[in-house]
Amino acid sequence: MQMAVAEARKGSGFVQTNPMVGAVIVHNEKVIAKSYHAKYGGPHAEVRALQAARKKHSAKTLRESTIYITLEPCTRQGKTPPCAPTVMASGVKRVVIGATDPNPHEKGRSSIGQMRRAGITVTTGVARDECEYLIRAFSKWINTKHPFVIGKVGMSIDGKITHPSQQQYITNPKSLHRVHELRQETDAILVGVNTIIKDDPMLNTRLKRPESRLSHPTKIILDSRLRTPRNSQALDDNTIIVCLEGVSHKQRHALAKTGADIIELPLQKQQGKLLFETMNMKALLKELGKRGKTSILVEGGSFVFTSFINQKLIDEFYIFVAPYLYGATYLPFTYALKHSVTIEDPQPEKLGDNILVRGYAKYN
Amino acid sequence: MQMAVAEARKGSGFVQTNPMVGAVIVHNEKVIAKSYHAKYGGPHAEVRALQAARKKHSAKTLRESTIYITLEPCTRQGKTPPCAPTVMASGVKRVVIGATDPNPHEKGRSSIGQMRRAGITVTTGVARDECEYLIRAFSKWINTKHPFVIGKVGMSIDGKITHPSQQQYITNPKSLHRVHELRQETDAILVGVNTIIKDDPMLNTRLKRPESRLSHPTKIILDSRLRTPRNSQALDDNTIIVCLEGVSHKQRHALAKTGADIIELPLQKQQGKLLFETMNMKALLKELGKRGKTSILVEGGSFVFTSFINQKLIDEFYIFVAPYLYGATYLPFTYALKHSVTIEDPQPEKLGDNILVRGYAKYN
Repeated sequence: MQMAVAEARKGSGFVQTNPMVGAVIVHNEKVIAKSYHAKYGGPHAEVRALQAARKKHSAKTLRESTIYITLEPCTRQGKTPPCAPTVMASGVKRVVIGATDPNPHEKGRSSIGQMRRAGITVTTGVARDECEYLIRAFSKWINTKHPFVIGKVGMSIDGKITHPSQQQYITNPKSLHRVHELRQETDAILVGVNTIIKDDPMLNTRLKRPESRLSHPTKIILDSRLRTPRNSQALDDNTIIVCLEGVSHKQRHALAKTGADIIELPLQKQQGKLLFETMNMKALLKELGKRGKTSILVEGGSFVFTSFINQKLIDEFYIFVAPYLYGATYLPFTYALKHSVTIEDPQPEKLGDNILVRGYAKYN
Repeated sequence: MQMAVAEARKGSGFVQTNPMVGAVIVHNEKVIAKSYHAKYGGPHAEVRALQAARKKHSAKTLRESTIYITLEPCTRQGKTPPCAPTVMASGVKRVVIGATDPNPHEKGRSSIGQMRRAGITVTTGVARDECEYLIRAFSKWINTKHPFVIGKVGMSIDGKITHPSQQQYITNPKSLHRVHELRQETDAILVGVNTIIKDDPMLNTRLKRPESRLSHPTKIILDSRLRTPRNSQALDDNTIIVCLEGVSHKQRHALAKTGADIIELPLQKQQGKLLFETMNMKALLKELGKRGKTSILVEGGSFVFTSFINQKLIDEFYIFVAPYLYGATYLPFTYALKHSVTIEDPQPEKLGDNILVRGYAKYN
């Protein structure tokens, strides 16, 4: 199943809004075929693996084989025919499944029962945590139509997100590489307009791998009053600028010329008063979900993190910790929070002299 | 050598102002004796191990043996006779050493050369980092007469040192156990008076092990104006209160009645003006070194950490990170720093859901 998970990850950046899936076929303890879901709309992992196996091996060999799949085969006609019938027709004697299908349309039509009734031995829940982790964004989006939100911060160990020189990265090259891998996997990268004004980042993925995604993730700029400079590097036709209603038509028009898509969120009221600086991030997530964004990576700064946390909207944190103490002079990860957050089952990972701490968010 | 390091650690809390040392004797790949320096003034590790070996084994066996010692044997008469002659007289054919002797009195009288001239094969630098780590406090103290300073903080991952409830520990029981092990190893625990007023801690070690040290570490309270309440739990004849000159005789007398030792530091001037709130921590370290303190554990709070860091006096950090975001409302690890600090070669260690990050301090 570990090999199937590794296969699945090869689809990273190519399959949205489908989930990443991997499959491995084993005969007499030997791997005879493996494959993954490689492209949205293309054939699914288990179908590709079975095709590969059939090319080289006899029907008898297949009947003595076990297929490991990270996700339960689908039973539903989508862009491709359903997979469960293909698996059953292949004659494999055993199917081992990691995660069950989170798709609400599949409720009550489990392929697991169908395969068992067809005489196949089915084992479920093998490496469940890892397999469910692969499809965490898909699971949320298919059920809520909102994207999965990852909060990514690079900070000193005392929680500061600006380098004393103001110009250098806080985290090391190994961490930056992980950030680019993370960007590779997500559909959009979100930052506040202050980050654009201060750093003018490109917000793309810079992995030099042949399997890099064909298109870069969409860039999202939270910019209530449209202060984004028109010559910002991040601006192109793969950019969304999010503002509040009431911005001038002229401003909108000028920025729209760069190709950017502009989403205007309604102003919010609290005790009858209009709140000019507070965006309804939930309304934004709904808009992004409609646009097929299954996952977004929130990269800061402090004000953006604070807003997302106060609205309880970050699902998972990736905190890259660099071994420095900068002191209270520099920008903090967050300002005052309405409630504390617990990072559940935090997984530390040593990246040179940096430490990545990763885990789901629980709001207290 | 790993076994010798483990032996050495058994002396933790008992040997100050001597270093922790362990020794293991191996014959034909079998351990025939092991021991450690168990008590200040008592026999050294290598001498105890050789005694144990001689009781059970012949002189011939010893002549075919190798002794692993975490620290180079001494050549100098102290509370006990020098060890190098005992090692040479034992007839062992090979001596493997972890750390060389940092004692400046031993300069130019290396036992390594003496043993080699006596025909013994000597190997040095085996597991050097671990062996030097064992004696890091001793090494500093013997060379500078100042104690080694460990900064220990328990904080949320966003760098806050107060729990939102104000009453609970931020870190988990596994971290607290490590803190008590750390207290066990150090000669004194230092906190600011605000910690005493707010938390009224006992500042002792609470390990339920038979090998727990006989006496608790000394408690040091930084209290420029003697605001420590007379009924504080930490006050007894193993407490040092550090104040600034100018406190009233009456105040001093009242606190001295609890048995506490009171150190009065001179007031400092900057540009001709007296600084009433700034203590000269270096002068304090000198006083503590004179009192035989080879190591102190600085446990906070924010003001104390900031002072020590700004005076570049913390040698090593133990940062216990709990997986919470509390936000800017709570007390930070440090206030504004005059310079940033790098934690060198940081070693992360998972303690349940907490992460301990440990490393030497480098001031930038």
